[in-house]
Amino acid sequence: MKFDILPLSGALDADLRRLIDNKTKPAGSLGQIEDIALRVGRIQQTLTPELSVPRFLVFAADHGASVAGISAEPRDVTWRMVENFLSGGAAINVFARANAIELSIVDAGVAHEFGVREKLIDAKINALGTRNYLEEAAMSAAEYEAALEKGAALARGFVNAGCRFMGFGEMGIGNTASASLITHCLIGTPLEDCVGRGTGLDDAGLTKKRELLADAVRRANLPPDADVRRILCEFGGFEIVMMAGAMLGAAERGATLLIDGFIATASCLAASRIAPAICDYCIFCHHSAEPGHTSQLAALGAKALIDMGLRLGEGTGAALAWPLVRAALLMLNEMASLESAGIVLRAR
Amino acid sequence: MKFDILPLSGALDADLRRLIDNKTKPAGSLGQIEDIALRVGRIQQTLTPELSVPRFLVFAADHGASVAGISAEPRDVTWRMVENFLSGGAAINVFARANAIELSIVDAGVAHEFGVREKLIDAKINALGTRNYLEEAAMSAAEYEAALEKGAALARGFVNAGCRFMGFGEMGIGNTASASLITHCLIGTPLEDCVGRGTGLDDAGLTKKRELLADAVRRANLPPDADVRRILCEFGGFEIVMMAGAMLGAAERGATLLIDGFIATASCLAASRIAPAICDYCIFCHHSAEPGHTSQLAALGAKALIDMGLRLGEGTGAALAWPLVRAALLMLNEMASLESAGIVLRAR
Repeated sequence: MKFDILPLSGALDADLRRLIDNKTKPAGSLGQIEDIALRVGRIQQTLTPELSVPRFLVFAADHGASVAGISAEPRDVTWRMVENFLSGGAAINVFARANAIELSIVDAGVAHEFGVREKLIDAKINALGTRNYLEEAAMSAAEYEAALEKGAALARGFVNAGCRFMGFGEMGIGNTASASLITHCLIGTPLEDCVGRGTGLDDAGLTKKRELLADAVRRANLPPDADVRRILCEFGGFEIVMMAGAMLGAAERGATLLIDGFIATASCLAASRIAPAICDYCIFCHHSAEPGHTSQLAALGAKALIDMGLRLGEGTGAALAWPLVRAALLMLNEMASLESAGIVLRAR
Repeated sequence: MKFDILPLSGALDADLRRLIDNKTKPAGSLGQIEDIALRVGRIQQTLTPELSVPRFLVFAADHGASVAGISAEPRDVTWRMVENFLSGGAAINVFARANAIELSIVDAGVAHEFGVREKLIDAKINALGTRNYLEEAAMSAAEYEAALEKGAALARGFVNAGCRFMGFGEMGIGNTASASLITHCLIGTPLEDCVGRGTGLDDAGLTKKRELLADAVRRANLPPDADVRRILCEFGGFEIVMMAGAMLGAAERGATLLIDGFIATASCLAASRIAPAICDYCIFCHHSAEPGHTSQLAALGAKALIDMGLRLGEGTGAALAWPLVRAALLMLNEMASLESAGIVLRAR
């Protein structure tokens, strides 16, 4: 599959920088807020970037390996949490309402039949979820392609309908483990440094998870130069692959991507192997408490906006950070210039 | 002056913790968001804290020492920025509009005549600003008392009218220097560790500022056990003292205080010497790029919510962090419980 993502030009950077420096404040005094404004101006290739309601996509799927002790929680929590999303009671629902974010839930392969439901996008790749990567590859090459393509098509549709900011979250019992394996294989972080407690393992559980994931790596026996497709086929999950596809589709159309925590960043790492220019379109919204996130961000040369000890997923970190992005754009579009305010600053 | 601030009881903590842990998420997975919810529940002494529109007060005043090279900017920037606040073009205006915050500007002693203006609260203590602390004490004991009392009365009025969340910001050319001196005297941080570039000094300017502030400390010749009143009288400014008074008045009435960066935290440190229980009511919103802020937060045992390299003041860091506080309260009040969602988690 080919994604046609335009590497961003810095042609407007000097003009954007001048505009920001001419606001009624000392140059640089709004720190990362200024960086966001510059980045979105560059993504939209304008000095007056458009601020529209963001669309968050929460991708859900089940993992075959989740029965084996790689997660603190039983597998049925995936579909029950999807039901919770649909009835508006989850953290991501609350934060989306609080910050005027549109939310869609995407069933990428939850092992449960939801029927036709408002706000649930049925994009099931496999009704049973992925296979158990402790025993075999999590998905076939055809499933991988289908997941990537469905994600991209979904995202393109939203951007074509006017969405300029897309947030990415996920739900899937076992997907922290999957993201750890993918991170290990993609950027070489030692497995022990990128296997964490997920959403709640105790010490014994963490030890067992580490052993199981080392087993999975041995079982897969990937060559050192394994490509991203091979890695994702081995370790899944459908929500991770589909989210990567959606990121690619959204970046192709020029949207700004709001990346959540450890699992969303695993998708983003994978997407960056398919089309490196995607990184130009990303805002890394929060620094997760999951240990592997630090290596991921370092590999991407990224600094997250907030660091509040979050490790929930669902896109919650991105939803919490959205008002900072919105504020940055409003700073660029609405703040008075020094000239218009009749102020002369010496330190510029 | 006596402030009657009730030290908060932890009587509801266990119930609040249980309520938060019973939300549809793994226990602790929302990190500092959970801490905020607990803190505001404790401040309001309820399991269902009330969320109302926050009121931000931006205190402005001039500093006699500002002519001497302790600031990168000329003194007239203070009143010009107040005009910018009044016409809605400053960063704090933009962020307040973005996040549905009510804003009031308080003239605590700007050396400029504004006349009667909508949204400007005239609380001038001295029409010339403070005196130059390089030569003499910045204010008299009577001025100090008046500033503290005016601030408290203002804040009490807003809380009596229904305000439950009060944010604190400031504007005053030279007030980073004043805050450095106050921080040094109150908590003993070496002067060189709490004198920064303010909003824009270069290397030579920073060296000169450090020398001048060391001169001011020698001139004042305070005894090691100097009380807070003596310290604030020596080094001002009116906005810092009035803001401390407002913090005390708001905490007295049970509001949650949203503390901005280095200068607001200097006011908060001063207020905590007058009534130590005030700390129970504070949320430290952002970690400033100004170096002394780190010592201040350590002295208060506080961790800020965001750390984005901001060093503008005006309450901008608190305004940017407000949506995080709002989200925390909505989490507590709106998120589904595990029971109501029919979810059983093993890791609790």
